[in-house]
Amino acid sequence: MSNSFVAIIMGSDSDLPLLENTMAVLKEFDIKYEARVASAHRTPDVVSEYVTDAEKRGCAVFICAAGLAAHLAGAVAARTTRPVIGIPCDGGPLSGIDALYSTVQMPGGIPVATVAVGKAGAKNAAYLAAQIMALADKDLDERVKANRVKACEEVIEKDRKLQEKLK
Amino acid sequence: MSNSFVAIIMGSDSDLPLLENTMAVLKEFDIKYEARVASAHRTPDVVSEYVTDAEKRGCAVFICAAGLAAHLAGAVAARTTRPVIGIPCDGGPLSGIDALYSTVQMPGGIPVATVAVGKAGAKNAAYLAAQIMALADKDLDERVKANRVKACEEVIEKDRKLQEKLK
Amino acid sequence: MSNSFVAIIMGSDSDLPLLENTMAVLKEFDIKYEARVASAHRTPDVVSEYVTDAEKRGCAVFICAAGLAAHLAGAVAARTTRPVIGIPCDGGPLSGIDALYSTVQMPGGIPVATVAVGKAGAKNAAYLAAQIMALADKDLDERVKANRVKACEEVIEKDRKLQEKLK
Amino acid sequence: MSNSFVAIIMGSDSDLPLLENTMAVLKEFDIKYEARVASAHRTPDVVSEYVTDAEKRGCAVFICAAGLAAHLAGAVAARTTRPVIGIPCDGGPLSGIDALYSTVQMPGGIPVATVAVGKAGAKNAAYLAAQIMALADKDLDERVKANRVKACEEVIEKDRKLQEKLK
Amino acid sequence: MSNSFVAIIMGSDSDLPLLENTMAVLKEFDIKYEARVASAHRTPDVVSEYVTDAEKRGCAVFICAAGLAAHLAGAVAARTTRPVIGIPCDGGPLSGIDALYSTVQMPGGIPVATVAVGKAGAKNAAYLAAQIMALADKDLDERVKANRVKACEEVIEKDRKLQEKLK
Amino acid sequence: MSNSFVAIIMGSDSDLPLLENTMAVLKEFDIKYEARVASAHRTPDVVSEYVTDAEKRGCAVFICAAGLAAHLAGAVAARTTRPVIGIPCDGGPLSGIDALYSTVQMPGGIPVATVAVGKAGAKNAAYLAAQIMALADKDLDERVKANRVKACEEVIEKDRKLQEKLK
Amino acid sequence: MSNSFVAIIMGSDSDLPLLENTMAVLKEFDIKYEARVASAHRTPDVVSEYVTDAEKRGCAVFICAAGLAAHLAGAVAARTTRPVIGIPCDGGPLSGIDALYSTVQMPGGIPVATVAVGKAGAKNAAYLAAQIMALADKDLDERVKANRVKACEEVIEKDRKLQEKLK
Amino acid sequence: MSNSFVAIIMGSDSDLPLLENTMAVLKEFDIKYEARVASAHRTPDVVSEYVTDAEKRGCAVFICAAGLAAHLAGAVAARTTRPVIGIPCDGGPLSGIDALYSTVQMPGGIPVATVAVGKAGAKNAAYLAAQIMALADKDLDERVKANRVKACEEVIEKDRKLQEKLK
Repeated sequence: MSNSFVAIIMGSDSDLPLLENTMAVLKEFDIKYEARVASAHRTPDVVSEYVTDAEKRGCAVFICAAGLAAHLAGAVAARTTRPVIGIPCDGGPLSGIDALYSTVQMPGGIPVATVAVGKAGAKNAAYLAAQIMALADKDLDERVKANRVKACEEVIEKDRKLQEKLK
Repeated sequence: MSNSFVAIIMGSDSDLPLLENTMAVLKEFDIKYEARVASAHRTPDVVSEYVTDAEKRGCAVFICAAGLAAHLAGAVAARTTRPVIGIPCDGGPLSGIDALYSTVQMPGGIPVATVAVGKAGAKNAAYLAAQIMALADKDLDERVKANRVKACEEVIEKDRKLQEKLK
Repeated sequence: MSNSFVAIIMGSDSDLPLLENTMAVLKEFDIKYEARVASAHRTPDVVSEYVTDAEKRGCAVFICAAGLAAHLAGAVAARTTRPVIGIPCDGGPLSGIDALYSTVQMPGGIPVATVAVGKAGAKNAAYLAAQIMALADKDLDERVKANRVKACEEVIEKDRKLQEKLK
Repeated sequence: MSNSFVAIIMGSDSDLPLLENTMAVLKEFDIKYEARVASAHRTPDVVSEYVTDAEKRGCAVFICAAGLAAHLAGAVAARTTRPVIGIPCDGGPLSGIDALYSTVQMPGGIPVATVAVGKAGAKNAAYLAAQIMALADKDLDERVKANRVKACEEVIEKDRKLQEKLK
Repeated sequence: MSNSFVAIIMGSDSDLPLLENTMAVLKEFDIKYEARVASAHRTPDVVSEYVTDAEKRGCAVFICAAGLAAHLAGAVAARTTRPVIGIPCDGGPLSGIDALYSTVQMPGGIPVATVAVGKAGAKNAAYLAAQIMALADKDLDERVKANRVKACEEVIEKDRKLQEKLK
Repeated sequence: MSNSFVAIIMGSDSDLPLLENTMAVLKEFDIKYEARVASAHRTPDVVSEYVTDAEKRGCAVFICAAGLAAHLAGAVAARTTRPVIGIPCDGGPLSGIDALYSTVQMPGGIPVATVAVGKAGAKNAAYLAAQIMALADKDLDERVKANRVKACEEVIEKDRKLQEKLK
Repeated sequence: MSNSFVAIIMGSDSDLPLLENTMAVLKEFDIKYEARVASAHRTPDVVSEYVTDAEKRGCAVFICAAGLAAHLAGAVAARTTRPVIGIPCDGGPLSGIDALYSTVQMPGGIPVATVAVGKAGAKNAAYLAAQIMALADKDLDERVKANRVKACEEVIEKDRKLQEKLK
Repeated sequence: MSNSFVAIIMGSDSDLPLLENTMAVLKEFDIKYEARVASAHRTPDVVSEYVTDAEKRGCAVFICAAGLAAHLAGAVAARTTRPVIGIPCDGGPLSGIDALYSTVQMPGGIPVATVAVGKAGAKNAAYLAAQIMALADKDLDERVKANRVKACEEVIEKDRKLQEKLK
């Protein structure tokens, strides 16, 4: 799986700041990724061609971020049998509830692995991709496990600071 | 516009009873239609080929019905510049709210003309198609206007019956 | 259809900034339009007289924007058999969910073609009107199709810039 | 106020069973009422003519019941300055939330006195009408007050039965 | 009804800015009013004593404003048979949906005439009170009708300004 | 605390089947209880007198169950400083969401300990009351802890049966 | 119960400003408390060890604050039979509705005493803890009752100021 | 990966009928699985011991199904770095919205791959697990791809039947 990578697709370049959270986690895990702007509605052929090509070149996981009637993850899932992770973007008037329902409520046979609305989801898309790829990559698995230990230590450190503050 | 017709696409054959409401209204207006089962997720190529072909053969309006993360209308809208009407289907655990948001919250440039969730929407999809096609079809326009008068008379008749009942 | 035009009706002049998105798209397509402030509740006679008059003068499509218990599109639809497009406005405490339900959940026989809440909907109302009018106007149809190609190219250009940025 | 009466308007005759709850309470209070089927969308002129006429003939309060995008109460309120009570009907796929928002979220200047969704609201529309009319009708005021005492006694009686049951 | 007045009760003095909209409309109609801070939860006896006393002194209508689990209008309705108008206040994390449901969903027998969440509702509470009191006050009825004409003219004037702007 | 007991108040005798879940758990824990039908809206004085009296007679915890605009728990909390547990009842058109918001969203200073909507909440009200009373009752504390062990064992037993079934 | 204390657990140190409302009320009641940062997801063992230890050392009530899929209160409730109070935090894109449902909808047998979303809930968690602990602490019971009287007086004072202002 | 398997955990044995959909798909793909009843709240130690043990024995993916405040998937995710798929179960009064929010809105660092509420989600959990495991199992990858082709053909066959019916 040495050539495997994550393909990030965003429905609009305005989603880039959100997805920088995703890329930062992937970098931390030393996972290769590509990031594309492509729209399920404005450039459906670009999406389907890119997905087919990326799968051939070794894409292990797709991460799709879109807001409103967020069809991007579903449109990608329709074109590949690789795992597709969907990040519902907030920002519109309905605060991302529309994007959440559009992403998670997929019909039987074409799953989208949906994560939380907005920033927490943007991070978790990368964590989930890492967990998936770690199944066949022992080194990555160790990095993922080490990161979990670090996250635990960070909470413990924050608690220590709180105890000092409350003294 | 003598060859123009409405193309009805349903995401699943379980939506057929709902769409019989749509077909009944189209028949009443003497509007030609085709009806297809095709899925944005399971048969994306069938959808895009059918849409392209239907548009060439004179399809004036597309009517799409789907439930859950209802992407069908949006996927069709991405493949044509003909008006696309979306019917959000109820029936799933979220009562069609998911289908409503997935259908109506389309991003700028790719509109879906969304009607009500479920049966009222199934009827109104046909009424809306008729109104749209009537713009270039004087006879149809007269049938649409006559139907409106009839709908008015039906309400008046129901009121007359209520008055008798309440006497 | 040389005299046909779009009639925009807004429930309040505070909706004007939102509807400038609609007018900008109509101008881009070289579609004639009128814009009126009229309220389904405060000036119901003005609404019904204007609708009747506009239809006689060649109005092809009505676009109605209102917030809260957004009855305007429904009130217009009750007075015409021309297609009526409804834009649910956000801005109130319920973020436009009230306007969405009030606009889309029309009973059988009187459809309102509902688009997204807020800005995306304001643009799409114009795109949908253009698609409807293009059915009987070959030149407009070509402008609509050309615009779709342009929208596609814009996404591709944004992707190109992202690739440069990520290098 | 000897000729004053309540005008009940229902958007569809299918709402009649619900409104029998309203009529039963009005009868109990010996309040005169009329009941009409009229639709804000299918028979807007019937609605506005009836409202104007009823107001002239002494209508003190309007009670309007509608489901889905429930515009009826708002359309009546636009045609009269008499108090208008709105009952949001459940029954559609959204369980009456759509009717509630469409009824209660009226813009400034045109109020609708909204009561609960469904059966509780159907009863309370009559209670509220009675309270309003009792302001200028001492006998009715006494009947309203006596009814409240009775309602209290009924709860106490139910409690007495529970105590027996639990012994 | 020369001594009749409106009693405004707010659950917290932080609701005062919102209720200034209510008072402004009452003043415009030359309707006497009292305004009190009293809490259904912190000062239940103050509420019930005040309601009983106000009713004796000629209070015709109660207007209650509260947010969150907004029980105030219901608690007042439990202590009087005068019409009680409830304004659901926004401002909390749930944007007033909680206050709306807590105010409108009253059980059979104890109605609360609910108006819109927030500012539109604060105005409409006063309009509704004026409509109710106008039933027994011809002069007030004329002021209410004149105000409606003025509201209509204001919309027409706004439309005139829009037409100038669009020229 | 030998005389301490739980006071159950239900807004309507139709809530009795739901509350039998509560009583069954209290009996299992050998906790004394009283159960009353009393309405915050129809019998507010009965509620406040009962609450004051029950507190004097040793009531340790109040459990209140109501649906729709569920004010009962809040009205009880306003009359006592004993812990008040609120069960939001489903059954109305909004499935208990109205009751949940009306119960849980209490303003600062007057808490209601809210449990789940419907049956799970009816049971948990009793478990929570038992946990609260166990703080000052060692025997009860042991029964509560033993019950938790039993609940754990029941899950383990259900798992054992599943393993057999899947063999 | 001289050693009894409240254990506050927050899922993240970013919840501290919210919980300062909780601590302020506990201080006012002279109730001992500890406050910890611990995460049900990142440090599940820290949570379970702390809960077990705190219960042994005399913890009477746990107060847990978390946002999003707020599992903290449930995870604590799974490890103790002491009463657990849950504060759903707002702040995320869904305004705390997610945290409310995740906290209150506990299955039968493992209750979480849920209070309001955000600031009102943060205060009420402390009031509820005080009410619970006051059952076995007469002095605290008096302080709780005195505080209720003070809260009542504060409302009365605010009303007095409003009366001056309105003169 | 010859020993790798899927571990299904259900919060209650009442979820078994739903999960038979999951098992049927896993069987179709010839994927080994275990199924356990274990509760995040009633048997937290059983959950954490099983998860640790299953991971050691070669568990590749966890699938967790729970309703209401559905913490199970999150509790499992806190104990492993293997991918965890969450199925929100409907069935409670809130129709699974509570379970959806409790499952999907996980904080950064501990992802749960959430699928649709109820039956569609139960199927998709298995499809997603298969897609994940297929990354390191060529034979499974071929079965997954073949299944997708079959799903496509089934839709086409349904369409063929519809065409016959409509003739």
